[in-house]
Amino acid sequence: MKEINKVTVLGIGVLGSQIAYQTAYCDFDVVAYDIGEEALRLAKERVVNLAATYKEQVKGASIDKTDAALKRITYQMDLGLAVAQVDLVIEAVPEKIELKQDIYSRIGKLAPAKAIFATNTSTLLPSDLMGYTGRPDRFLALHFANQIWIRNTAEVMGTGKTDPKVYRTVVEFASAIGMVPIELKKEHPKYLLNSLLSPWLENALELVVDGVAEPETVDKTWRIATGAPMGPFQILDIVGLRTVYNIAAAGNDRQQRQARFLKKNYIDKGKLGPESGQGFYSYTSMK
Amino acid sequence: MKEINKVTVLGIGVLGSQIAYQTAYCDFDVVAYDIGEEALRLAKERVVNLAATYKEQVKGASIDKTDAALKRITYQMDLGLAVAQVDLVIEAVPEKIELKQDIYSRIGKLAPAKAIFATNTSTLLPSDLMGYTGRPDRFLALHFANQIWIRNTAEVMGTGKTDPKVYRTVVEFASAIGMVPIELKKEHPKYLLNSLLSPWLENALELVVDGVAEPETVDKTWRIATGAPMGPFQILDIVGLRTVYNIAAAGNDRQQRQARFLKKNYIDKGKLGPESGQGFYSYTSMK
Repeated sequence: MKEINKVTVLGIGVLGSQIAYQTAYCDFDVVAYDIGEEALRLAKERVVNLAATYKEQVKGASIDKTDAALKRITYQMDLGLAVAQVDLVIEAVPEKIELKQDIYSRIGKLAPAKAIFATNTSTLLPSDLMGYTGRPDRFLALHFANQIWIRNTAEVMGTGKTDPKVYRTVVEFASAIGMVPIELKKEHPKYLLNSLLSPWLENALELVVDGVAEPETVDKTWRIATGAPMGPFQILDIVGLRTVYNIAAAGNDRQQRQARFLKKNYIDKGKLGPESGQGFYSYTSMK
Repeated sequence: MKEINKVTVLGIGVLGSQIAYQTAYCDFDVVAYDIGEEALRLAKERVVNLAATYKEQVKGASIDKTDAALKRITYQMDLGLAVAQVDLVIEAVPEKIELKQDIYSRIGKLAPAKAIFATNTSTLLPSDLMGYTGRPDRFLALHFANQIWIRNTAEVMGTGKTDPKVYRTVVEFASAIGMVPIELKKEHPKYLLNSLLSPWLENALELVVDGVAEPETVDKTWRIATGAPMGPFQILDIVGLRTVYNIAAAGNDRQQRQARFLKKNYIDKGKLGPESGQGFYSYTSMK
């Protein structure tokens, strides 16, 4: 891409590492920034593991290709050096607003004026952050889904201030790194995917918590009615019941009741999803 | 089945005709009851059309088979004769509570004591009706989906009074007529399928009414994230936009706003779904 050559990813956690690796895998030079030596050690570990995962799961991913991608990533714990010559910063730091506001205040001064900033936040709106970037017209949200190499959506959401040309550039960048760009025409809490997925999963869980039906029954009904390969409980298992529990526990009354149900019947019994061999379904063959 | 040989379907409308034909297609003798000569004429027309549809769409449906099914259905406008020797009555009269209560009061006296009554209601609970049946222990809901030969779920929902043996018999009957029985363990408004499907479709529609994204974008996001073959707008098209509009227009404020949007942008322009060649998607090749 003409406009985007160098990409910096801030925060190399679960999703940050996937964004960094996928971007490098698609031939971009990537700087991976995290806050210290231990964080960077973990970051490298995550990225190396991803190379192995790609080799297994991504069509056409040879050792040559996955290794070359590893070599296109440099690690950096100096924020100034990390963003010095960057065209695009993708921010994936933890979902704490003060943390994000602080890092935007700093890179707003450290990065070149031409640089585009994109936040991967899923719980905040870009307009919550744009005032800290020093460049509201070159700032927007670019939101990835977990397991980026399988679920390759990238939701692109600007604010009222985002320059439409910048928006187009980021849409093109998303395509260039193998994502399907999902264009939101205005700000919307939870973006597209989660505004559909979360209440659907919550409604399904409620049917089981209420004792109306078994998870298998709910899934079967959905599969037959919509032709989908998976019902909500199969998807909840994939998300991981610990994550599902954490989200529910932080939610409203209905969700907290669901959290207690999950804790008692699943978490406390070590039923966490495929990783533990058992969630709503059994995965013994995978253990 | 030992317990169920003769089945009577009350109300031979869109779904009633499908229930009657599917039951006959699976070797049961069926009495099709409707309220007068004109209603029965329409009923026969629907059933004959279904035979043609099965021939086209159902695997292994030879002319011999679809014709034999037609011959197993007798038409009746005398309610007493319709239920005189019946083992199972499936009631599919219009969704008006007085109408349903009236017909149960009448068949409660006319049908043999051994007969099981099942309501196909989707908007009422069986407990709203059980007091009129004269046999609360032999009464429950058996709820079918439209296009029974494709979406073959049959939700079985009893009241606190339903005899568990009767419940099992109806579950077995559902299997015997080629349905996948969906067992609800207690009463729940909108059953399983609609408690998941309706809010999901409504949330999707809201994203488009709000101008957040295009229908194609929402569908694409859902398909990639869940592996499903269809997103919500593809399903809304299949349901038919006139039906979607009618449901929304009878709903709460949010739904009524959606109804206005649908009317202005789709219904008034003759975009009704596949039947008109255009809904959210274009179906020109099908016209």
